[in-house]
Amino acid sequence: MTNDTAMKLDSLWRGAHIATMKNGLYSVIENAATGVVGGRIVWIGEAQDLPVYEAQTEHDLGGGWITPGLIDCHTHLVFGGNRAGEFEQRLNGVSYQDIAKQGGGIASSVKATRDASEVELVASASRRLKSLMADGVTTVEIKSGYGLSLDSELKMLRVATELENQCPVTIKRTCLAAHAMPPEFDDKDAYIDYLCESVLPKIATLGMADAVDAFCEGIAFSTDQVERYFKIAQSLGLPVKIHAEQLTSQGGTRMAASFKALSADHIEFIEEADVKAMADSGTVAVLLPGAFFTLKETQRPPIDLLRQYGVPMAIATDANPGTSPALSLRLMMNMACTLFALTPEESLAGATIHAAKALGMSDTHGSLEVGKVADFVCWDVESPGELSYWLGGNLVKHRVYQGYLSQGNENQGGKA
Amino acid sequence: MTNDTAMKLDSLWRGAHIATMKNGLYSVIENAATGVVGGRIVWIGEAQDLPVYEAQTEHDLGGGWITPGLIDCHTHLVFGGNRAGEFEQRLNGVSYQDIAKQGGGIASSVKATRDASEVELVASASRRLKSLMADGVTTVEIKSGYGLSLDSELKMLRVATELENQCPVTIKRTCLAAHAMPPEFDDKDAYIDYLCESVLPKIATLGMADAVDAFCEGIAFSTDQVERYFKIAQSLGLPVKIHAEQLTSQGGTRMAASFKALSADHIEFIEEADVKAMADSGTVAVLLPGAFFTLKETQRPPIDLLRQYGVPMAIATDANPGTSPALSLRLMMNMACTLFALTPEESLAGATIHAAKALGMSDTHGSLEVGKVADFVCWDVESPGELSYWLGGNLVKHRVYQGYLSQGNENQGGKA
Ligand SMILES: [Zn+2]
Ligand SMILES: [Zn+2]
Repeated sequence: MTNDTAMKLDSLWRGAHIATMKNGLYSVIENAATGVVGGRIVWIGEAQDLPVYEAQTEHDLGGGWITPGLIDCHTHLVFGGNRAGEFEQRLNGVSYQDIAKQGGGIASSVKATRDASEVELVASASRRLKSLMADGVTTVEIKSGYGLSLDSELKMLRVATELENQCPVTIKRTCLAAHAMPPEFDDKDAYIDYLCESVLPKIATLGMADAVDAFCEGIAFSTDQVERYFKIAQSLGLPVKIHAEQLTSQGGTRMAASFKALSADHIEFIEEADVKAMADSGTVAVLLPGAFFTLKETQRPPIDLLRQYGVPMAIATDANPGTSPALSLRLMMNMACTLFALTPEESLAGATIHAAKALGMSDTHGSLEVGKVADFVCWDVESPGELSYWLGGNLVKHRVYQGYLSQGNENQGGKA
Repeated sequence: MTNDTAMKLDSLWRGAHIATMKNGLYSVIENAATGVVGGRIVWIGEAQDLPVYEAQTEHDLGGGWITPGLIDCHTHLVFGGNRAGEFEQRLNGVSYQDIAKQGGGIASSVKATRDASEVELVASASRRLKSLMADGVTTVEIKSGYGLSLDSELKMLRVATELENQCPVTIKRTCLAAHAMPPEFDDKDAYIDYLCESVLPKIATLGMADAVDAFCEGIAFSTDQVERYFKIAQSLGLPVKIHAEQLTSQGGTRMAASFKALSADHIEFIEEADVKAMADSGTVAVLLPGAFFTLKETQRPPIDLLRQYGVPMAIATDANPGTSPALSLRLMMNMACTLFALTPEESLAGATIHAAKALGMSDTHGSLEVGKVADFVCWDVESPGELSYWLGGNLVKHRVYQGYLSQGNENQGGKA
């Protein structure tokens, strides 16, 4: 028996409140319901306002809060080995210099990543990815940057692609070939030339990256070098992002804004002119409190200035083996509150709608609105602020990816 | 067919390395095996040295590292409500004073705990307990201290007892009636009199607590008041512990040491004489980096002095709704390294053998040795240092409680 006037749904979800994150605010719907067709939201509102509908599956979530699936917009999740050994050596008093002499630091990750097979890299990254997913993440950006040669950068980007094939998660791939100097080059300009002539064009032709990133810092590449590299990226139609102003002020953020960069990341040392440039170019500020914490930094990003100019602030794990071995985006939300004094609402916006904008996907992701992809999480909490409040813990009741239940955390049991 | 000379085992575990934590060091056994009878370890060593045995079940762990089950030796896991609302208010600029005027702070937890039924308290604490367990914890200490009346303190201790009945975990119950002032008292000495005359004797008679704790601080109880309370505890045969020297130096640690306290906890402001007293009395230093982090403290506990005097350092979550909403002991191990510069080995000893000592149970728990309880975790890591290295994430492959497999994390799959 069908009702021609009824709203036809693949699935209907009810029994929870929703923080939609529309416009970067909680934008709460209490006692909410949402209907999904073809992986997209076609109806969302208070359950009492539901029109007549026919749903193939209906889920009563049994309480809690729904938010958009979390989006981790800055990770280096694919790498060979790990640097727990260095972490341990440093705490046992071995100096950075001695660790570098042993081939440690980023060089050791480059070597281990080059030496690893694609199958090995998929296996190790997939374990880390599952940790992120179990804590409510439905989209993850993954950067290359431990290959530093055409073949090994492509290998990393293929691994990122394969992770999306294997797991219910959306992966955005960023080419970070300008991350560090590979051992076979000793001139930074020559390496940038190689990237501009041989690496970026090939990666663009193969469609292996969604964006291009660079590490602009005294210890990495200069603003001029990154600008040359960005010009090529731009000519190839690839949007850019930048690691900038983490340890010193180099002008990288302003330069990137002139390319309408999707995001400028870290940015502890930006000044008012940088913030203004970001506001003008629509560039998102990506805050990485895990690296700030791990490196025991003291200079905080200028949160008040970013607020004043209305620059959207995203939060990400920066998951990487050296400076932020972080496998929980929700923990980064807590750290953004505790270390940078963001509000829990700003934190949640930073891990949803503003993170989507940092990946150029805010038209389809990051908030729960009609027409957007049905990626969401139902949390076992009494308020959305709890997501930033708890340090660790399993709060996921149900994880829904493209309209399908894909439990992140089987310990919480599923009654849907 | 039985072999009379064969070692008879309930279970045999192999296929992983073991960090036994004997004597507070990794004390590694590579390619190890361990045999269990009646929930106790009867054999442990290199697999190649196994004598002839007959085991009812045999488990190949398929790689990774085994450590003792983690022991969280300082929690306030049972409480009504939570304080995420206050966390959010403070970050939105509401002052501590205004929050206190609204009945916030610890008073709100006391009210919510008194108002909650036992069933409600079991349900909410059990969710938090499962988070701890999923991250590798097999023993949890739980303090009362949000009741502050005989009936409501007993209610909290009954809830702690019930949690042990419901979950594969060992619970140690601590009476922290001297945590704060209840609203019906306005004189601290009168409240201490009440505890000494009416609360401690009853709790001891009923066998509802394994230890007695107090909050010794300018904002809580004085050293003299705590001393009176400890004298009664001692006369009742209950060991004592203390929250001391967290915000100021009050002499609480030295006084507690004179009672051979199991532990002195927080202790950011202890001095050399306190450390010497702890060393003499065998008192464990319990470090609580989650509270240090959440409160943005700057005074670190004197780690070098504690090392110098050989005072064992334990690490705990201090899980509580106000100053440390922490649900991962492994995250506290990272924070102990990052914030207090402990080594990963000290961190792991702090969450195993030294935590056992802080609970008076190091004869049976905290390290993997013949005769000890078979509580252990097999982790998906390549070195035990990884347990302190990663920020968040799911690293548990298998969790074994009293010789039985009790998976903490079903996402990691079980092949045993
Ligand atoms: Zn990065
Ligand atoms: Zn405490």
